[in-house]
Amino acid sequence: MKKHIAVVSGDGIGPDIVREALKVLFAVGAKFGHTFTTSSYLAGGAALDAVGIPLPEETLDGCRNSDSVLLGAVGGPKWDTLASNLRPEKALLGLRGGLGLFCNLRPAILYKQLSDACPLKAEIIGEGLDLMVVRELTGGIYFGERGRTDDAAFDTMAYTVGEIERIVRKAFEIAQKRSKRLCSVDKANILNTSQLWREVVKRVQGDYPDVEVSHLYVDNAAMQLVRNPRQFDVIVTENMFGDILSDEASQITGSIGMLPSASLREDSYGMYEPIHGSAPDIAGKDLANPIATILSVAMMLRYSFGLQAEADCIESAVSKVLDNGYRTADIHTPGMKKIGTNDMGSLIAQSL
Amino acid sequence: MKKHIAVVSGDGIGPDIVREALKVLFAVGAKFGHTFTTSSYLAGGAALDAVGIPLPEETLDGCRNSDSVLLGAVGGPKWDTLASNLRPEKALLGLRGGLGLFCNLRPAILYKQLSDACPLKAEIIGEGLDLMVVRELTGGIYFGERGRTDDAAFDTMAYTVGEIERIVRKAFEIAQKRSKRLCSVDKANILNTSQLWREVVKRVQGDYPDVEVSHLYVDNAAMQLVRNPRQFDVIVTENMFGDILSDEASQITGSIGMLPSASLREDSYGMYEPIHGSAPDIAGKDLANPIATILSVAMMLRYSFGLQAEADCIESAVSKVLDNGYRTADIHTPGMKKIGTNDMGSLIAQSL
Ligand SMILES: CC(C)[C@H](C(=O)O)[C@@H](O)C(=O)O
Ligand SMILES: CC(C)[C@H](C(=O)O)[C@@H](O)C(=O)O
Repeated sequence: MKKHIAVVSGDGIGPDIVREALKVLFAVGAKFGHTFTTSSYLAGGAALDAVGIPLPEETLDGCRNSDSVLLGAVGGPKWDTLASNLRPEKALLGLRGGLGLFCNLRPAILYKQLSDACPLKAEIIGEGLDLMVVRELTGGIYFGERGRTDDAAFDTMAYTVGEIERIVRKAFEIAQKRSKRLCSVDKANILNTSQLWREVVKRVQGDYPDVEVSHLYVDNAAMQLVRNPRQFDVIVTENMFGDILSDEASQITGSIGMLPSASLREDSYGMYEPIHGSAPDIAGKDLANPIATILSVAMMLRYSFGLQAEADCIESAVSKVLDNGYRTADIHTPGMKKIGTNDMGSLIAQSL
Repeated sequence: MKKHIAVVSGDGIGPDIVREALKVLFAVGAKFGHTFTTSSYLAGGAALDAVGIPLPEETLDGCRNSDSVLLGAVGGPKWDTLASNLRPEKALLGLRGGLGLFCNLRPAILYKQLSDACPLKAEIIGEGLDLMVVRELTGGIYFGERGRTDDAAFDTMAYTVGEIERIVRKAFEIAQKRSKRLCSVDKANILNTSQLWREVVKRVQGDYPDVEVSHLYVDNAAMQLVRNPRQFDVIVTENMFGDILSDEASQITGSIGMLPSASLREDSYGMYEPIHGSAPDIAGKDLANPIATILSVAMMLRYSFGLQAEADCIESAVSKVLDNGYRTADIHTPGMKKIGTNDMGSLIAQSL
């Protein structure tokens, strides 16, 4: 198989972790006989510094003309005081919207090797955690009409049936491949958009009779995630609720430096990135944990290229290296072997 | 002191827990020589059943003409299929909006007697948890313009400077009386309303130079509450973020049956209610935990009537009864004495 990947390293530790992820990508390509080629593009602070805007047209075009996108991280305090249309986050929104990536998959997995880092009591996490948050990514209050005067401001959360239906169907399909349980989260006791959301879930449900559906209000979901996260398997929700709940879910795993994400279009095209931020304080110091980005490559192989064995191979390699006691600083505990970004990437590539 | 209190028992366990809270209110009145009188009003499902609307004008008027309001709980599955303008929740919004209760105080306290119920590891909760979420309650997406067609829906999150400033000032005043640390939560990297919010916090901050201010994005706040809740003392945020984060915060204490809340106007007038729901499955069975409602009475005495000693007296009585090993079913653990709603109220009243 031949695939061309747009690489957007971004800011802070972005270049550090993407470098290691590409090491693993090329190693898996060599092992399985695939040819992966890449082109690099600027976005976020890096683009602001170079060309004065967070998302150059060239980057968007380059991504569009590739088979998928690997993103590091964007943003940092250096650009936080810029006008809002020049903030690095605009690059993220521009990529999501511009590439039509409406389906954001955020697995929250507790790595058994890191269970000490889980903030929840052992009796709550039991055998472990493995849930999937499916977040709508190109609608809602992130993309609605907005306005500002000196004295007031507004943002609009808007959804059409079509926007809701396509993400809900994706979630049902994912639930079918997992435990066949889907929890839809909304605020239907208050919001019109949530009432519409719930109506769509109830209608679409008819096409997936094997999937058991539940509905939770977002405030209750935020509680249940802490109280008993194991009740969840797949959660589907709108953009902003998904932003909040997926971060909460990843935190309860305690494995935040380990968690990848995928942002998908209707077809198999997607953008893949770690869920953690750009951590500018440790950029370039060989301190960052590249595992979330490496696992993002595994997601890319699985979701965009249909390469299951190759994806499994990366995930097993990560497990093996953790089993052997290697840890980057962020996940290091007494008795484990502390290594840098570079060595972690190399060890995983060698363990494939 | 003479005070007249509007009592809205509401639905489910509402009447059970309000009855016990009034027992304690009258006992504290007798002990300290105050005269508390009450009038009862219908709201929520109880009002729907009786008069066909969730919030009769008479209830709103009765509340307006009282010195404060004690609310039990509203809602339940029985009324969940009604049109949205007839939902019991409309009563809550109608009371909040109609009475101008823009300032919602939601303490999240870990009761040391219940620390086993806390879902977080002992090393995270350390000496305990005691934080205060200050939630804007009459603005934002709960009250903004909204619309619906067959194919689409929208909700509007809107804020004026005045709406933000008054809640932010309340939060600063509360922080001054506590640890002098205030964390403002927003989504200023995306929302116009959040950018305005942050501007107001930064300006108003000048009037409270003794308070140390931090800002967090809501997704990060949802994570930090799980990772290290002890970093927080007072959190201030807009209506919907406050809904989500205050529920998450109360869950991490594990003491949800114990937590009261206050909803205040600019003056000392307020509405007081437990944060838990109406639990219709256990209504009328002498199973509900009345402590959150009893502690809501303590908040009323403190915030609306300035009766500090009386409020402290209720809180100590609750502690004493817990120390003596009495528990309602929801907080019962092996070795403790299980008692009903009625006995719990009586024991607390006797311990004043
Ligand atoms: C950086 C920010 C705009 C972004 C979001 O809110 O979507 C981030 O929190 C995320 O979840 O990817
Ligand atoms: C019942 C619901 C409308 C309400 C809210 O969202 O405000 C509740 O969750 C609360 O927090 O008091």
